[in-house]
Amino acid sequence: MAQEKKQVEQITSMESDFAQWYTDVVKKAELVDYSGVKGCFVLRPYAYALWENIQAVLDKKFKELGHENVYMPVLIPESLLNKEKDHVEGFAPEVAWVTHGGSEPLQERLCVRPTSETLFCDHYAHVVHSWRDLPKLYNQWCSVLRWEKTTRPFLRHREFLWQEGHTIHATPEEAQAETLRMLEVYADLAENYLAMPVIRGRKTDKEKFAGAEATYTIECMMHDRKALQSGTSHYFGDGFARAFEILFTDKDNQLKNPFQTSWGLSTRIIGGIIMTHGDDSGLVLPPRIAPVQIVVIPVAAHKAGVSAAADALLSRLKAAGFRVKSDTSDQSPGWKFAEYEMKGVPLRLEIGPRDLEAGRCMMARRDNGEKISVALDHVETEAARLLEEIHRGLFEKARQNLSQNTFTATTLEEVKAIAEGPGGFIKTMWCGDEACEEKFKEAAGVTSRCMPFQQENLGETCPCCGKPAKHMVVWGVAY
Amino acid sequence: MAQEKKQVEQITSMESDFAQWYTDVVKKAELVDYSGVKGCFVLRPYAYALWENIQAVLDKKFKELGHENVYMPVLIPESLLNKEKDHVEGFAPEVAWVTHGGSEPLQERLCVRPTSETLFCDHYAHVVHSWRDLPKLYNQWCSVLRWEKTTRPFLRHREFLWQEGHTIHATPEEAQAETLRMLEVYADLAENYLAMPVIRGRKTDKEKFAGAEATYTIECMMHDRKALQSGTSHYFGDGFARAFEILFTDKDNQLKNPFQTSWGLSTRIIGGIIMTHGDDSGLVLPPRIAPVQIVVIPVAAHKAGVSAAADALLSRLKAAGFRVKSDTSDQSPGWKFAEYEMKGVPLRLEIGPRDLEAGRCMMARRDNGEKISVALDHVETEAARLLEEIHRGLFEKARQNLSQNTFTATTLEEVKAIAEGPGGFIKTMWCGDEACEEKFKEAAGVTSRCMPFQQENLGETCPCCGKPAKHMVVWGVAY
Repeated sequence: MAQEKKQVEQITSMESDFAQWYTDVVKKAELVDYSGVKGCFVLRPYAYALWENIQAVLDKKFKELGHENVYMPVLIPESLLNKEKDHVEGFAPEVAWVTHGGSEPLQERLCVRPTSETLFCDHYAHVVHSWRDLPKLYNQWCSVLRWEKTTRPFLRHREFLWQEGHTIHATPEEAQAETLRMLEVYADLAENYLAMPVIRGRKTDKEKFAGAEATYTIECMMHDRKALQSGTSHYFGDGFARAFEILFTDKDNQLKNPFQTSWGLSTRIIGGIIMTHGDDSGLVLPPRIAPVQIVVIPVAAHKAGVSAAADALLSRLKAAGFRVKSDTSDQSPGWKFAEYEMKGVPLRLEIGPRDLEAGRCMMARRDNGEKISVALDHVETEAARLLEEIHRGLFEKARQNLSQNTFTATTLEEVKAIAEGPGGFIKTMWCGDEACEEKFKEAAGVTSRCMPFQQENLGETCPCCGKPAKHMVVWGVAY
Repeated sequence: MAQEKKQVEQITSMESDFAQWYTDVVKKAELVDYSGVKGCFVLRPYAYALWENIQAVLDKKFKELGHENVYMPVLIPESLLNKEKDHVEGFAPEVAWVTHGGSEPLQERLCVRPTSETLFCDHYAHVVHSWRDLPKLYNQWCSVLRWEKTTRPFLRHREFLWQEGHTIHATPEEAQAETLRMLEVYADLAENYLAMPVIRGRKTDKEKFAGAEATYTIECMMHDRKALQSGTSHYFGDGFARAFEILFTDKDNQLKNPFQTSWGLSTRIIGGIIMTHGDDSGLVLPPRIAPVQIVVIPVAAHKAGVSAAADALLSRLKAAGFRVKSDTSDQSPGWKFAEYEMKGVPLRLEIGPRDLEAGRCMMARRDNGEKISVALDHVETEAARLLEEIHRGLFEKARQNLSQNTFTATTLEEVKAIAEGPGGFIKTMWCGDEACEEKFKEAAGVTSRCMPFQQENLGETCPCCGKPAKHMVVWGVAY
């Protein structure tokens, strides 16, 4: 029988070429495949399982907060997309158009949804009539299409999977509260499940969503000190409701326009997980969403009792609720170690004849390489303890990366020096003028990531124009 | 305060106009909304929750059987769709074409996937190289688009949600076994969760999937005695693998083409649930997939203790694992009764002052209207028992409809008389010739639903041509 062992090949190191390292990891960890359409990627089982775990966390939380899932059509008539002026300006340049159905040209072009505000509004106009019909707290899981020029796995797809929440309320206060509440759901996912510390804040008008009155964001810092916008939440006021003529009879018998929000988080976050935690051996996955939390590897499996002991451990760990698999293939232990390191499995459990004799096994942490000898009687409690430690360790390491690479500047020259030197996030004051925001970009190549909720007073004036400062902004180079 | 009470309006009766009854139920039970694109329907929360419950049953089963979820792109280049001759002939006439991305025309047209065989094949060609890479047992949850001329909610959408399983194997035997195994998963879903008895069988060549060697089906009979094809499973042999040049090195070191299957079940099944179990008061949902299994309705809720008792029952039933809600709105009990009847909630639990005094409550079955007085101490066990009885009752009623409306014929005249008379399924022998199959359609308006796995010998000759019979076929008028 031919021994065609799959080689675990070397990947580019992070320090030598971070972009190539990323591409290597995405491929070697079997996350995506390229399809025949640029920017449309195949999500392979391991990536999809990761997404399913993220979905499960969010979907549960959405439902606990009273949201219901729905499904809107994938196609939007051009006339519907055109109804809200700012929205169509933002999205029309990057949509894909369906012009033929079967062999016949369509009377009106249909775009493949880039986002579904217009569809939700059309539906609300049909079903919202009275204050009794409000609020509607909806969410949908789907794919959207945006005709991007430059594409990269997870970070910039033409087609990507996401959830888009859409809610409609009787009062602006209720809608605003919803916008912030859902941003906090994203922050909780990022910090407590993905071990990614976030900066919560509001986008400047220049960076906000097309059609929104306000956009809120969670921003994360990647290993290379660039920013990833990881989830956004939008307050629309009654702009869409007016454009789509959504009206309800309020308790006071007056006809009014309701107030709306939307909020979305996409598979982009998987790119964030890779670039926050990964290392030169591949992926490092946060335990709470890892598709496999523990891999059991028998060593010298042909020796008496080893296979049976590995099977028993697998069963015990499964029964205890861990996501666990064992690899009993005829590949060498060395090959297996490298394979599951590449895939970022948080814990590896090795068991061989000598371990067995001692009534112990070995647990190896993916995050720091530490090996711990564990009594067989205690595998469940030790696995639980170590997975928790790994989560905390990953979060702490990412938090340090964020805090050590966040700088303060009071002049444009300082901003430029930091951007060109160490890189990272740069906090400055800002006058609120878009012209100054443009100058940061021109002078230092940075864009405003957000105006953090936690404002600090770093001075009285804008580093650009010298006028009175209104906000503290975090700047950075973004994915 | 204005009392704008939503009216539960009358719906058309099933006997007077079954098609209109169906349309009324779909609307009044708040299952779908119409969008701006013909045949693309909004799935409202109640319909989507039903779909989620169906998904949960199937997804768990798929995973237990070793399948992994993936996600393939929504767009297929025309050249890729064209690779397998029979497949493209079947699907090209009904696909929607994307011709522009942003403001630019595309170099090659892209179709919105009508099904994803071609995408899976393209991916397999990238990742299947050795016998070690086989089998791949994949599934995806997504929407597909088929440019149908006539559309109806659930039964015929242009865009519909489904799952499509795609597997690839080293041997034809393994692939054939998978095809039948997955048909049985669908039959189990239909019978044991949806209370829909099925006929399992094989499609004739005329009715099989474009590109398949064999298509298997589960066929259900609706209340109006028409057939609904409710799930199909296809064996492809190595036809796709040859067309897409998928090759693997087998254990004997020879390069070979692998063997494939696909199988799908869609939101169409929701139309089947409606038309199998519904009645003149609206939906009747099978308890195992009903979004709400029990609705708790306090009667005279302002009387002392009633609200508190209703709340306590709600909590107890939730804790016991039932899907339960209560309606404490200011609508009248009569309005509420009609509303949850329309929505097909299997059990209604009423509690009022007199019940409370007696330490009892009333449970009303949606399926047969029976009312049962239940001691408060026993609500959980009684609810469980009644929900099981409702499931069995619904299945038995549907089974009787199927058996009482399945007829045997030995001449084309008899087939015609049955089709024009009572309607229903008609069993006959058949020579296997497509010309005769066509004659059944011309003479009696029926199509072959399947050649059931449980064959019976009804005679020696084909009712059409008199030649020796090869198969027993079930004929019917299909949705």
